[in-house]
Amino acid sequence: MLETTTFEMIALWVVLGIALIGLGYALFLRRQVMAHDKGSTKMIEVWEAIKQGANAYLSKQLKTILPFIIVLTVALFFSVYIVPPSAEALERFSNLNPDQVKMVIGFGRAAAFILGALFSLMVGQFGMRMAVQANVRVAAASRESFDKAMKISYRAGTITGMLTDGLGLFGGTIIFLVFQKAAPDALLGFGFGGTLLALFMRVGGGIFTKAADVGADLVGKVEASIPEDDPRNAAVIADLVGDNVGDCAGMAADIFESYEVTIVSGLILGLALVQLTGQIKWIIFPLLVRAIGVFSSIIGTYQVRGKKGQKEGNAMASINKGFYTSAAICFVSFAVLAHFYMNEWRAFLSVGVGIILAIAIDELTKYFTGTHYNPVKEIARSSQTGSATVILSGLSTGFESTVWAILVIAATIFSAVLIYWGQPVAYVLYGVAMTGIGMLTLTGNNVAMDSFGPISDNANGIGEIAGLDKPARKIMAELDAVGNTTKAITKGVAIGSAVIAAVSLFGSYMTDVTKVQAQLKVPEALQLLTTGIRISTPMVLIGMLIGGALPWLFSSLTINAVSRAASLIVIEVRRQFKTPGLMEGKVKPDYRQAVSICTGAAQKELIGLALLAVLTPLIVGLVFQVEALGGFLAGAILSGQLLAVFMANAGGAWDNAKKLIEDGLYGGKGSAAHKAAVCGDTVGDPLKDTSGPALNPMIKVINLVSVLAAPIIIQYKKISPGVIVFLVLALIAVIISIWYSKRTGLKEFHQVEETVKQDK
Amino acid sequence: MLETTTFEMIALWVVLGIALIGLGYALFLRRQVMAHDKGSTKMIEVWEAIKQGANAYLSKQLKTILPFIIVLTVALFFSVYIVPPSAEALERFSNLNPDQVKMVIGFGRAAAFILGALFSLMVGQFGMRMAVQANVRVAAASRESFDKAMKISYRAGTITGMLTDGLGLFGGTIIFLVFQKAAPDALLGFGFGGTLLALFMRVGGGIFTKAADVGADLVGKVEASIPEDDPRNAAVIADLVGDNVGDCAGMAADIFESYEVTIVSGLILGLALVQLTGQIKWIIFPLLVRAIGVFSSIIGTYQVRGKKGQKEGNAMASINKGFYTSAAICFVSFAVLAHFYMNEWRAFLSVGVGIILAIAIDELTKYFTGTHYNPVKEIARSSQTGSATVILSGLSTGFESTVWAILVIAATIFSAVLIYWGQPVAYVLYGVAMTGIGMLTLTGNNVAMDSFGPISDNANGIGEIAGLDKPARKIMAELDAVGNTTKAITKGVAIGSAVIAAVSLFGSYMTDVTKVQAQLKVPEALQLLTTGIRISTPMVLIGMLIGGALPWLFSSLTINAVSRAASLIVIEVRRQFKTPGLMEGKVKPDYRQAVSICTGAAQKELIGLALLAVLTPLIVGLVFQVEALGGFLAGAILSGQLLAVFMANAGGAWDNAKKLIEDGLYGGKGSAAHKAAVCGDTVGDPLKDTSGPALNPMIKVINLVSVLAAPIIIQYKKISPGVIVFLVLALIAVIISIWYSKRTGLKEFHQVEETVKQDK
Repeated sequence: MLETTTFEMIALWVVLGIALIGLGYALFLRRQVMAHDKGSTKMIEVWEAIKQGANAYLSKQLKTILPFIIVLTVALFFSVYIVPPSAEALERFSNLNPDQVKMVIGFGRAAAFILGALFSLMVGQFGMRMAVQANVRVAAASRESFDKAMKISYRAGTITGMLTDGLGLFGGTIIFLVFQKAAPDALLGFGFGGTLLALFMRVGGGIFTKAADVGADLVGKVEASIPEDDPRNAAVIADLVGDNVGDCAGMAADIFESYEVTIVSGLILGLALVQLTGQIKWIIFPLLVRAIGVFSSIIGTYQVRGKKGQKEGNAMASINKGFYTSAAICFVSFAVLAHFYMNEWRAFLSVGVGIILAIAIDELTKYFTGTHYNPVKEIARSSQTGSATVILSGLSTGFESTVWAILVIAATIFSAVLIYWGQPVAYVLYGVAMTGIGMLTLTGNNVAMDSFGPISDNANGIGEIAGLDKPARKIMAELDAVGNTTKAITKGVAIGSAVIAAVSLFGSYMTDVTKVQAQLKVPEALQLLTTGIRISTPMVLIGMLIGGALPWLFSSLTINAVSRAASLIVIEVRRQFKTPGLMEGKVKPDYRQAVSICTGAAQKELIGLALLAVLTPLIVGLVFQVEALGGFLAGAILSGQLLAVFMANAGGAWDNAKKLIEDGLYGGKGSAAHKAAVCGDTVGDPLKDTSGPALNPMIKVINLVSVLAAPIIIQYKKISPGVIVFLVLALIAVIISIWYSKRTGLKEFHQVEETVKQDK
Repeated sequence: MLETTTFEMIALWVVLGIALIGLGYALFLRRQVMAHDKGSTKMIEVWEAIKQGANAYLSKQLKTILPFIIVLTVALFFSVYIVPPSAEALERFSNLNPDQVKMVIGFGRAAAFILGALFSLMVGQFGMRMAVQANVRVAAASRESFDKAMKISYRAGTITGMLTDGLGLFGGTIIFLVFQKAAPDALLGFGFGGTLLALFMRVGGGIFTKAADVGADLVGKVEASIPEDDPRNAAVIADLVGDNVGDCAGMAADIFESYEVTIVSGLILGLALVQLTGQIKWIIFPLLVRAIGVFSSIIGTYQVRGKKGQKEGNAMASINKGFYTSAAICFVSFAVLAHFYMNEWRAFLSVGVGIILAIAIDELTKYFTGTHYNPVKEIARSSQTGSATVILSGLSTGFESTVWAILVIAATIFSAVLIYWGQPVAYVLYGVAMTGIGMLTLTGNNVAMDSFGPISDNANGIGEIAGLDKPARKIMAELDAVGNTTKAITKGVAIGSAVIAAVSLFGSYMTDVTKVQAQLKVPEALQLLTTGIRISTPMVLIGMLIGGALPWLFSSLTINAVSRAASLIVIEVRRQFKTPGLMEGKVKPDYRQAVSICTGAAQKELIGLALLAVLTPLIVGLVFQVEALGGFLAGAILSGQLLAVFMANAGGAWDNAKKLIEDGLYGGKGSAAHKAAVCGDTVGDPLKDTSGPALNPMIKVINLVSVLAAPIIIQYKKISPGVIVFLVLALIAVIISIWYSKRTGLKEFHQVEETVKQDK
């Protein structure tokens, strides 16, 4: 048993209680939202189509990934026979005999993995279902008043936010209470489960949403010159479904996973300090910080509302008010906590830096993607000389933005160094982890803001298709615009936190490897924390080069997947346009076909990409050993961060440049400048909503796989060549399967193309 | 004096002799080329315009950079008062007193720097002037026969090739002969001078050529729908000048610099082995390999010719035949050298891996950018759904290609590890350096192939403008097409060799730092070669993040510079189009104006970008210390390589996809698909010819600055904050100046825009 004071034991139970209160609050909000009216039959009809599409997608996705999850669960259980329980685990369960401990830890690892995966799935699934329930109600409420529509939309989003918060905190705390000093054994499984699921949701959802969006735009806006969300476009429902599975389910799972991983690495690095200092406060602190975050999110989010019955209002101001309320509560409470409990201010400073980091990334994102600043204005201006200059201008902006973002992250790490100046590296790593904790303190508010986006977007779409009247449409259009801003902000936070989380995991990797090395009686001079990961040795350099390449490969594959799926959508919609009476609005298009094309396309890529993320670190580790694997992780973090922010911001900037022109600049809608800007927007779509965000969970999956596999790699230093050959063959099989799916996708494409040609 | 055998002394003089023979061969070819006829008055008139433009550009550029060079020369001379001569230098000049040695070494550093800069400048300037002399003669000869035109074009290119070879080998050998074991002191200066000049030529030439090209295309092909090289387009001469200053002067200086840097790092790492083993063969070997390369290039390049008087022929086959002849001579000679002189095969294997690496990168480049393979076909196909899908498809291709390229480089480093398995790191680093030497063995042939490109391109342009008859035009068009392929191949080699050279420099950095540390009596356990560069320490991680960001910043700025300059060209040509009679061909446009716009735009950015490359490593080193600077270099190499290859290949692929369509696919010229493909090509232009190639010298400049500054950084571990503040302020000044130039560029742009509007 760890030495806890009574206060600390009470505190832990309070944390657990707050997690449950957060979940209860979500339930409470759900009732509120569900009580509202769903509107006219026509609206319900559209909504039913969206709901069916979204549910069909999620259940098909679940089926695809279930075998993968089962295999990994079994592997994690049996891993205990290769990697025996840690010394801490034996101590923790000293009342059991070693074989029993083995069973307990094996079971714990597997259970924690399932728990992590399940929670991630729940956040995504429930969140998305809630969003779907809310959108039609927002549309209905917008016929009455602005405040009602906004409230439903934001509160429905808050439900997802509180699920993220509550489940993340609940899971971490319960595992810690059960396993105590043996917690790392299980926590890693928990983190891995959540991250892997997030990867699936992100990649699948991202491909779905952008295939539908890009496809619908290309064939609708560009080719047929009909407006967005026009009911004659067969891909329009798929587009709305995509907003839910991508921006809502995908993003929520993604942030949940960052939330989870920061607490996991915070606890692991905290435990290292506990062992160093004998004080347990290092691990209680992050849990308390998180609990304060949940509590303050409840209060802050409930503040967000308008004046009753008003017909127009400022949604952004209201959302910001809620955010600042939460932030203020946090700030004061953290100070109290640091002063009275920690008896020192360094932990407070680290958490504070996290909050500043979130704000800094926010401001950067706003500057580079906001319509009020020079970069986007510049892109809009360059649309006058055609689409090529729009693209170049956006690329240049994206490149520059990623430089500043990474400098902010470097400054964050540097401040951790300064805060813990003169202390061992373990403190600095802990400081970085606390920065991650601080950054995600207001996850409840952040996810609420994010989910607000797709809900308003969908409401607007339903309004367009169901033909609501002008005042209601105006309210929804305004909410939609605010939603675009909040989505962009959350995206920045998601990427920033992903890298900070990855850096903490990188720290956990070294701590973990060293612990295993010590257990295996490797001389201290040869242990990883002593030798470090020397980029100056050729092997580590090789690892770094391979790691740096992985995000590029991943992005290449995801962009490609979107392009191919979008082409299929284009062809399908073109085919349907030829149906007699459709263009006159007399015949309804077959929406389901487009939904099922997107679903199929997204599924096809999932397993291959996941295997790539899981197998590559294993192979690098086994072939080039643990130190090179460290180089691999560093390379992947560096190149992943640079690429992810570039793609996110370039995409956001193009999007908003197009909006500027649609608002009347340089000839407005329909002008040559507008066409050029639409090209930029279309290019940016998969970058900002598929490839960029997919890198967040990808970076963490490879980090977690490395931490989990490190003991095996060290132990089997001279691993039988057979195993390596097997793994390399497996990777080759994956690559071939990806290529094959690309080929068959293309073949399919050409077949359809041929059919269409013959039809002519 | 190093212990050389008589054989070795003779060998060194023979090496020097071969270098001079190479230069003599260049002179001999020059006479041959100059003896040819320049054609009709009209052709000479066009040619005069190109010549004047190119010369004006080069002399203006020289004026811009001269102060910079002078300041650095003085700094290098006085650096000897901060960093005293090495122990080896004192030994080498043991007949002088220490103060005299200081003077000699200071003078040596400064002189070597000037020598490197001068040689780089000469290669660029002479090469370009030669290209300009040749293009009109090729155009004239094409009226007679295919073989004559090809021979002039290729031989003029070979002159640049032999200058690169000859001057590189001559400089390295002479410095080695004079300074012997003290050579590193001077060699670094030599490398730095060459690299810095290459950076200037690359960046300036790149901006010039693409501003002209993109601007001319946008306003000519896209807006006014007139063909390329149409004499009514006021930017057409600037475009032709651009081919010379970018593809010819820029590329030649770039490859010269890689050639130089590989020999510099090969000699430095070789000297480390000499000290380790007492055998001098480690440094004689690379010089002999290079000499064999020069010799074989002379024989191989002279083989390239067609059958006398033939009207058509296969230029590519002939060029390849010459290449393989040279390669065969090298291969056999290396084997003989390894067996009889080195008495071991490892050095041969390393050099051989270099040749294989060159071929592998070649094949990769061909696959991803060639018209016969799937990637380009895919891009062409996606042009049917508009420019957005063309861009996405190209991005995905570029992303993927960079993954494979970096894996090939990782494999190369791994093979150096395998070849020197079980030996100290110094051997492995030497192996990597020898790979670089091997890769650039056939530089003579490579540069000849590359310069062949702009010469044929220009000849074709002169033919179009001067209105030559059809058979002649056909010959030139064919040479032009072959030139595009050879240019692309050289680009791949240039980038690959840049990274290998950078990795060797990275090795030199560690060797150098450790030597200084030993001199300063730093305990061995704390010396860099012992501790390594530990990416696991926060400071090194910070360094790596900053280093990784630099190539992105650099690329952002260069893309931006091209966009702005291209906009100015567009506006200028639009203005001239309005001149009465111009569109009817009655009035000649004012070509000079466009040339001077490009010249001005290119100059404006030069100093800022060069300062960025020079100051950043200094500041990172002084603030975060030598280990972090190592991380910085590793980050810059990783991210620079990934970005450079991505940009080069995406650009190449777009270019060729457009060509596929122009050859008749998907509706051919003028179709919607063609418009989409032109968009891709225009986006790719600055990526592949400005930003991508600029990263090669940039990576090496920061590496060389780091190696040169390392002793200062170590010595002034506790450097006065004043110096750091000064440097940081200097960097801020640079950034502000870049921003300012961006602003004023924009302001200028808007002013011109306004004028044009008022004109309407």
